[in-house]
Amino acid sequence: MARRKQIKFGAIIHGVGGNISGWRHPEVRPDASVSFSFYKEQAQIAEAGKIDLVFIADGLYITEKSIPHFLNRFEPLTLLSALASVTSNIGLVGTLSTSYSEPFTVARQFSSLDHLSGGRAGWNLVTSPLEGSALNYGKSDHPSHDERYKIAEEHLEVTRGLWDSWEDDAFVRDKATGVFFDPAKLHRLNHKGEYFSVQGPLNIARSKQGQPVVFQAGSSESGKNLAAKGADAVFTGHETLEEAQAFYSDVKSRTVAYGRSEDDIVILPGISLIIGRTQEEADRKYEEIAGLVSIENALDYLGRFFEHHDFSQYPLDEPFPDIGDLGSNSFRSGTDKIKKQAREEGLTLRQVALRSATPRGPFVGTPEHIANLIQQWHEERAADGFIIHSTLPSGLRDFVELVIPILQERGIYRSEYESDTLRGNLGLKVPTNRYATAKVGG
Amino acid sequence: MARRKQIKFGAIIHGVGGNISGWRHPEVRPDASVSFSFYKEQAQIAEAGKIDLVFIADGLYITEKSIPHFLNRFEPLTLLSALASVTSNIGLVGTLSTSYSEPFTVARQFSSLDHLSGGRAGWNLVTSPLEGSALNYGKSDHPSHDERYKIAEEHLEVTRGLWDSWEDDAFVRDKATGVFFDPAKLHRLNHKGEYFSVQGPLNIARSKQGQPVVFQAGSSESGKNLAAKGADAVFTGHETLEEAQAFYSDVKSRTVAYGRSEDDIVILPGISLIIGRTQEEADRKYEEIAGLVSIENALDYLGRFFEHHDFSQYPLDEPFPDIGDLGSNSFRSGTDKIKKQAREEGLTLRQVALRSATPRGPFVGTPEHIANLIQQWHEERAADGFIIHSTLPSGLRDFVELVIPILQERGIYRSEYESDTLRGNLGLKVPTNRYATAKVGG
Repeated sequence: MARRKQIKFGAIIHGVGGNISGWRHPEVRPDASVSFSFYKEQAQIAEAGKIDLVFIADGLYITEKSIPHFLNRFEPLTLLSALASVTSNIGLVGTLSTSYSEPFTVARQFSSLDHLSGGRAGWNLVTSPLEGSALNYGKSDHPSHDERYKIAEEHLEVTRGLWDSWEDDAFVRDKATGVFFDPAKLHRLNHKGEYFSVQGPLNIARSKQGQPVVFQAGSSESGKNLAAKGADAVFTGHETLEEAQAFYSDVKSRTVAYGRSEDDIVILPGISLIIGRTQEEADRKYEEIAGLVSIENALDYLGRFFEHHDFSQYPLDEPFPDIGDLGSNSFRSGTDKIKKQAREEGLTLRQVALRSATPRGPFVGTPEHIANLIQQWHEERAADGFIIHSTLPSGLRDFVELVIPILQERGIYRSEYESDTLRGNLGLKVPTNRYATAKVGG
Repeated sequence: MARRKQIKFGAIIHGVGGNISGWRHPEVRPDASVSFSFYKEQAQIAEAGKIDLVFIADGLYITEKSIPHFLNRFEPLTLLSALASVTSNIGLVGTLSTSYSEPFTVARQFSSLDHLSGGRAGWNLVTSPLEGSALNYGKSDHPSHDERYKIAEEHLEVTRGLWDSWEDDAFVRDKATGVFFDPAKLHRLNHKGEYFSVQGPLNIARSKQGQPVVFQAGSSESGKNLAAKGADAVFTGHETLEEAQAFYSDVKSRTVAYGRSEDDIVILPGISLIIGRTQEEADRKYEEIAGLVSIENALDYLGRFFEHHDFSQYPLDEPFPDIGDLGSNSFRSGTDKIKKQAREEGLTLRQVALRSATPRGPFVGTPEHIANLIQQWHEERAADGFIIHSTLPSGLRDFVELVIPILQERGIYRSEYESDTLRGNLGLKVPTNRYATAKVGG
């Protein structure tokens, strides 16, 4: 099966960063998470690098212990819409939870973003890992992991159905005859399911890319199946080539098993970049960042993945404590991995906490080193592309100015956007409207 | 009590228009309702005229009979966010229903818009007049008029509470000490009410204007009380000076009765403008627009206010039929008025339908005529300002170029924005955070 020859890139823009103490770095604007000028600048740098998309993550519950970026940040749909009018080619992808939203509103807002941006919208479907989210949405219980995925699957079915309410050529707009639309091309969904009942039609037309691109970001069994069945792209995360390869072939096989083609889904592992002109410079940058985190902060941060468990009650320099099932209903794939590594490598609590607070992946080094790894992961079926996260804001510019030219020279990355839609740039087909009758001639 | 000397203006931007056949006019772009370039151009014209705000209306249910603009239009929050980055002073106000939304999401999205725009966001709170909305949100019944207002009141209370989650100076962001925020200035709402249970805190800081400006747009008893109790502004609609005066003094008195000042609420009747260099030109423009509507279209349009009632079953040239209570759970104040006028003026169904399809208010005429009326309504306590709706898109430019200079010359309209926030321009106080302790010294 033909593989995409060109690597795809997304840039996650993440305010003061995904790190508990990153905001203290001299280079970081401490209000970046609510600074539109910061997001605009980063998006425009990414667009100058012909990057496929910017990616805005999200969450629905905070406590005093949440990392700074989570406490005070823009909401993704409003932010992406504001970015739509200051960019022209780059895709605009944002996280929104199916556990605490209504399909009619979700379908409308992403479709509206798709129209506003001329076909550049993407929805990163998540199910909300944080149990506390329920408390902000009047629910007594956060649904279990399995139930959240059942809800997600039905939500996506409804949302996609609403996006097809109007056939592509439904709006005739003939002033002479007075025909604004063709009623035969307007469709009611009339969905009545286990979790949602939605009549439709949606009050907005299909956009240029047919439907917004759907990302899925969970790596559990249910997450992989949801992706394989219905998503256009997967945002995942792996520490080693082997892990990434296993995930890649697993999701591609599942996708084929659902009757789709391998090329119908784009797999994009997230990678944390630290770029130096020399390896020493990159190492020094890593140490600078890691050195900002205190052990108290690191324990807090670790607790976040385990339902805000208080790890300060355990001795720091003894083996990682036995905390039973804690964490299995939240970020399950992540917490399983932490427990497994601690056990297999015999790590102490201190080691686990510091490593979690400032993970150091393989993508720390010179532009050449990073370009080589990217090429290898891509060639060896670990990734169709990457969602890059630069630990320091200057890293995105370094990536665009130093790494991308190497990839372009090797002929594995574009010098110009192929399309003005996100779907077009990712090499994904425009989905046919489910109600459209076969066209003669084509 | 001191009255605002300066008139306030909002411009409602409404795609192909609020009229069933307006899209057929030679001047109208038939895809205006989903054309960002159209909205951007209109917003920039309004901003050049120092108009306080643009206003985006909304609805959650359509049928084949809905007017063209409603069938296919942008969703307000995404549209306003996109407009935020191509404007710099004008307020950005959008409709969102309390009957089919979650306070946590509403509070976040409007707050995010407020941050993105540097303090220019406004929420027009509505309760969704259309019964069918329930069908798109998995509800078996649309709540009754009274219940919708009870929900709205609690929704607003929760949303305002979430907006106060963080005190204005909660984010310290001191890199040297590592203190990102002051935990004493973070507050959980812990709301448990009849319709909503929301813990909080909200994951975004207060913005420059403290809280987004809250508009209320219903003119029923419950609507007026909700406005008087908790809104910053009222968007209303009246056909005569006397009606507008009665509404104005009614709402101002109710506001005072709730312990607020008259100046704490801004009353802005909506007015439909048709501007001609001569009265004849204005009349001709009105006839051109009215002439595009067929009687079939007019009956459909009328039916929309009465729960999509089929009026084609009645004789056209006999008195307006007795339809009982129909319409009392939807646009109640509007449908009561239609019934009352039909009865008092002995109108036929044809007359009621055509008048509803293309209402001709008093604001049709020369710039001088319109400026005089505006000044009179303002001076004689019928309005603090107006939400202008231009029946033709060129009308907004005409208003800015021909009417506004007259008002400026008379000293009753600004030549420059007084503030860079919507609240500042409307002359509304920044609300004190409910949790803030008294400051010594000021």
